[in-house]
Amino acid sequence: MDFATLIGLVGALMLIASAVILGVSPDVFLNPASLLIVVGGSLLVVLAKFSFPQFLDAFKVAARAFKFKLPETQASIEELVEIAQIARKEGVLGLEGRELSSPFLAQGIQMLVDGQTADTIKQLLNKERLMTLDHNRSGAKVFSALADVAPAMGMIGTLIGLVQMLSNMEDPKSIGPAMAVALLTTLYGAMIATMIASPIADKLSLRMTEEARMQSLYIDALVAIQEGTNPRIIEQMLSSYLPPKERAKNGEAEAAGG
Amino acid sequence: MDFATLIGLVGALMLIASAVILGVSPDVFLNPASLLIVVGGSLLVVLAKFSFPQFLDAFKVAARAFKFKLPETQASIEELVEIAQIARKEGVLGLEGRELSSPFLAQGIQMLVDGQTADTIKQLLNKERLMTLDHNRSGAKVFSALADVAPAMGMIGTLIGLVQMLSNMEDPKSIGPAMAVALLTTLYGAMIATMIASPIADKLSLRMTEEARMQSLYIDALVAIQEGTNPRIIEQMLSSYLPPKERAKNGEAEAAGG
Amino acid sequence: MDFATLIGLVGALMLIASAVILGVSPDVFLNPASLLIVVGGSLLVVLAKFSFPQFLDAFKVAARAFKFKLPETQASIEELVEIAQIARKEGVLGLEGRELSSPFLAQGIQMLVDGQTADTIKQLLNKERLMTLDHNRSGAKVFSALADVAPAMGMIGTLIGLVQMLSNMEDPKSIGPAMAVALLTTLYGAMIATMIASPIADKLSLRMTEEARMQSLYIDALVAIQEGTNPRIIEQMLSSYLPPKERAKNGEAEAAGG
Amino acid sequence: MDFATLIGLVGALMLIASAVILGVSPDVFLNPASLLIVVGGSLLVVLAKFSFPQFLDAFKVAARAFKFKLPETQASIEELVEIAQIARKEGVLGLEGRELSSPFLAQGIQMLVDGQTADTIKQLLNKERLMTLDHNRSGAKVFSALADVAPAMGMIGTLIGLVQMLSNMEDPKSIGPAMAVALLTTLYGAMIATMIASPIADKLSLRMTEEARMQSLYIDALVAIQEGTNPRIIEQMLSSYLPPKERAKNGEAEAAGG
Amino acid sequence: MDFATLIGLVGALMLIASAVILGVSPDVFLNPASLLIVVGGSLLVVLAKFSFPQFLDAFKVAARAFKFKLPETQASIEELVEIAQIARKEGVLGLEGRELSSPFLAQGIQMLVDGQTADTIKQLLNKERLMTLDHNRSGAKVFSALADVAPAMGMIGTLIGLVQMLSNMEDPKSIGPAMAVALLTTLYGAMIATMIASPIADKLSLRMTEEARMQSLYIDALVAIQEGTNPRIIEQMLSSYLPPKERAKNGEAEAAGG
Repeated sequence: MDFATLIGLVGALMLIASAVILGVSPDVFLNPASLLIVVGGSLLVVLAKFSFPQFLDAFKVAARAFKFKLPETQASIEELVEIAQIARKEGVLGLEGRELSSPFLAQGIQMLVDGQTADTIKQLLNKERLMTLDHNRSGAKVFSALADVAPAMGMIGTLIGLVQMLSNMEDPKSIGPAMAVALLTTLYGAMIATMIASPIADKLSLRMTEEARMQSLYIDALVAIQEGTNPRIIEQMLSSYLPPKERAKNGEAEAAGG
Repeated sequence: MDFATLIGLVGALMLIASAVILGVSPDVFLNPASLLIVVGGSLLVVLAKFSFPQFLDAFKVAARAFKFKLPETQASIEELVEIAQIARKEGVLGLEGRELSSPFLAQGIQMLVDGQTADTIKQLLNKERLMTLDHNRSGAKVFSALADVAPAMGMIGTLIGLVQMLSNMEDPKSIGPAMAVALLTTLYGAMIATMIASPIADKLSLRMTEEARMQSLYIDALVAIQEGTNPRIIEQMLSSYLPPKERAKNGEAEAAGG
Repeated sequence: MDFATLIGLVGALMLIASAVILGVSPDVFLNPASLLIVVGGSLLVVLAKFSFPQFLDAFKVAARAFKFKLPETQASIEELVEIAQIARKEGVLGLEGRELSSPFLAQGIQMLVDGQTADTIKQLLNKERLMTLDHNRSGAKVFSALADVAPAMGMIGTLIGLVQMLSNMEDPKSIGPAMAVALLTTLYGAMIATMIASPIADKLSLRMTEEARMQSLYIDALVAIQEGTNPRIIEQMLSSYLPPKERAKNGEAEAAGG
Repeated sequence: MDFATLIGLVGALMLIASAVILGVSPDVFLNPASLLIVVGGSLLVVLAKFSFPQFLDAFKVAARAFKFKLPETQASIEELVEIAQIARKEGVLGLEGRELSSPFLAQGIQMLVDGQTADTIKQLLNKERLMTLDHNRSGAKVFSALADVAPAMGMIGTLIGLVQMLSNMEDPKSIGPAMAVALLTTLYGAMIATMIASPIADKLSLRMTEEARMQSLYIDALVAIQEGTNPRIIEQMLSSYLPPKERAKNGEAEAAGG
Repeated sequence: MDFATLIGLVGALMLIASAVILGVSPDVFLNPASLLIVVGGSLLVVLAKFSFPQFLDAFKVAARAFKFKLPETQASIEELVEIAQIARKEGVLGLEGRELSSPFLAQGIQMLVDGQTADTIKQLLNKERLMTLDHNRSGAKVFSALADVAPAMGMIGTLIGLVQMLSNMEDPKSIGPAMAVALLTTLYGAMIATMIASPIADKLSLRMTEEARMQSLYIDALVAIQEGTNPRIIEQMLSSYLPPKERAKNGEAEAAGG
């Protein structure tokens, strides 16, 4: 959830906000009671579908995804090749205290320094990787449940408003405004689902896949380093994680430098 | 279905109830005939999709999930490590009569005491685990069918009300209230599906997965105890069932105590 | 499709019927032309999706599922254990002429009496089992297609009625009744899908699974009998088909009797 | 797409047509502009989703399925047993020039006559079978895309009509007829999807499965003939392709004749 | 995305445009504010679901698919057979500098000339193939997300317009035009989804499959060439990629020329 998500979410919300503010009677659109029914009701129903830790965790996962960008594949490969070179020259102990771009990588390097076997490193880090995946997936599920529940709560709010309006139609002048208020909850529900919950759920799923892919790259590299593989061969091996274009550039740069 | 579900379901229903009660003409919203069509009709249609035992069982499964919370993974691991220590010092017979946090675990311990082989224990408990999973899944299916049927029954009720209203439009004043009543069944159907049946179905599915995971932890531990594995190694082995954070804490505590 | 389906279907239809009859202008709800469009049209479109034999067969499958209840698992196990005891004492020829609770079982016993090998029995009965499954599945598909088509035909009928009404609005008094009639087809379509076709399709799917499970129990037992397995061991083996509770009872009874 | 589809499609369309013609103002229902938007627009959008050959091919596949009925399983088995008897008595060369019920079978017999090995026949005909499957599936996909697109184009047409009507409401008398015309495109879209495109797509899928099953029967038989298997054994082997009932009849006839 | 897509997309849009222009008040249909909400809002929300590179890449992938047509299977086979003949006569070095119909093929030929083993060629090109597949799939996903988001944004715009209209109903004459404008966003959303985003997404998916199939043909051929297989056998082997009809023609031509 780097800049694309931030710009997309904020931009779309601002676009709708400006359409409302520049249009007639913008004050009609803010109705605390309607907002409470849709936002409060949806969150409570979603809470009922999960447990407290899972529910709260989803927001932490989303916030973390907002704040921390995944490192670039190219930069990570360069970092790993450098680590491999140091490990080759000075031994794995030379890696102690080195600052690293990712806590997952740091954990793996610590295992190297502690002298764990390649098999143990692979097994433990893979378990860690599956745990992160599971954690992120549960976060995506909460937002995806919110995207399902919000429009339904919006419709419930509108039905309540319509029933109230229809059973009190003595003053024909009040029908319009009453129906406007009734429609507000449907609008809120559609906006929460389409413009907030569903994009966050989709982005968390995407990031989940990318994080797992990056961690799989780290594991491949760490096992190769532990086995004392030549840094150049490690670089070649890892370049398969790059998209074709960058891979070509990488190859040329290598050829130029070789 | 611990507190999260209780608070979620009750909270959301209270929110809607207060919106109705504080709004105009709250008495319109309670219509026994409409309620009978949606609630009675939906339950009858769902009954038609299953057999009597499956239908009644679903409510028992939901009630059980409401009342009994699954033990915490951390507490279960500690309990199992303690059991492993006793089994090591006093033999499996020392476990007889011990109070246990789960009937499934008690059943496994009884097998240990009866001197069953690791293979038999694994096989029998795994069958038991699949049976529980099947039982819970059938409960979730009943609520999930209810979440499908209720809005459809609500729409049928509304269509009946609309046809009645449209064929008797002599008194224009009665149109509004008649339409309000017609919309009530749609409102009931949407509320049953969104705020009751669907959250319970989702929660039962989630709990089903967690219960199966917990039982798989018990089976792993019991087999290791039967084979006389060192309690410390059992603890390490089981810690893979913990989420990363708790696992770290566990490790530190262990290191501090070691 | 035992009593649960019968009570569910008839009960739900009677509930709706009483709401219509006790309400205003019940005679409006019966419109032969609308009924013909939805029922006739839906059946014709469903027919177009299948062949004649498949279409007609679906109703036979449903009727058979209505009339014949599957035997109870517990009773079937007892019957099979008794058969195993006879086969042990008197040889398989002692089974000739015995009355059996299911034609599938009778077919298997005949194979035993004919002296077929365990392998042949397994292979032939498994093929038979897959054929029954296929047959039932095709029946469920027809009703499931009907549940899809009926609401669409209802909407088509309503659109036709609306177009007719809108192009002839000279007499304002006729608008209400004309629209009531237009809505009838949507009501019929929703009722056929929600209260008839979809429950039957779901019930046939459920029964399909249960019938296949029961036939798999028969095959296991017949193979064990052909191989001369001890009836007590056959009983233990088959008890895995029982739900946990009944299994416990069975076990106790066995222990008490042992 | 034998008679069932023809009767189903034509019957349903005639039912709707008679409802329109016998109702008020039947002439309103035929609107060339609306028809052009829905039919033309839908076909163009579906064309955009495929390539020209795939698009045109779908109609050829549907027409072929309309015209040619698949041979009956029972008749095919009899034909194959006869072929096997000839091949046994006169050798495979005796099969040359024989008229056959299916081009696929003719291709296989030609391979037999050409003296291909069982392996080659199996491999080549299986590839042919997968190609036919692929071809038919692509035809079903085109009609299934049409069933998705037509209602959407109908809604687009209705929205255009509504916008036109709403922005020109000076003459209240014109509102009704204008809205009737606007609804026509939705009606056309629903009819094309429900009563034409979706049944054809479903029927092509069904026929696809049956054709693949029949070709698999031919391959089994041809391989057995090439290997010189006894015609009686071939008959027994192929009878597993028959539904249970016919199989029983076949068996009896066989027993009676044996 | 050859001519079929171009003609389909442009044709359908022109059909709708002419219906609008020839109808009443065509100028109502162009509303910049509504267009901004639906187009801008949808693109921003879709952007939020992906990252910048993925978002921009989708349009490049679509444009590339528009401009470059995949080579015909028949022509590719002929090209590959010719290459195989040259490689056989002059050795792989004779292929250097040859102009080729596809960059993917050129890359493979370069590997041949560089003297890579069949295994390496297969492995590297397969990775390349999976990368292209991944790249195209991500493009299809962006358009498919747009097809989901656009109707939802259209509905949000309409709800905003309806709330504005309902809260300002003093002048009854303004109701019609205000509602016409409110409906415009729904119309835009439906048109973007049905007539632009969804056909492009489906076409990219189709092309993706075809491109992967073509690359798999190239890989088969290159491996065979590297292994020095007879060009005639390569031709036979590759002809399995042709649809049945063309295969037959090919066979005849071959027979005639042989």
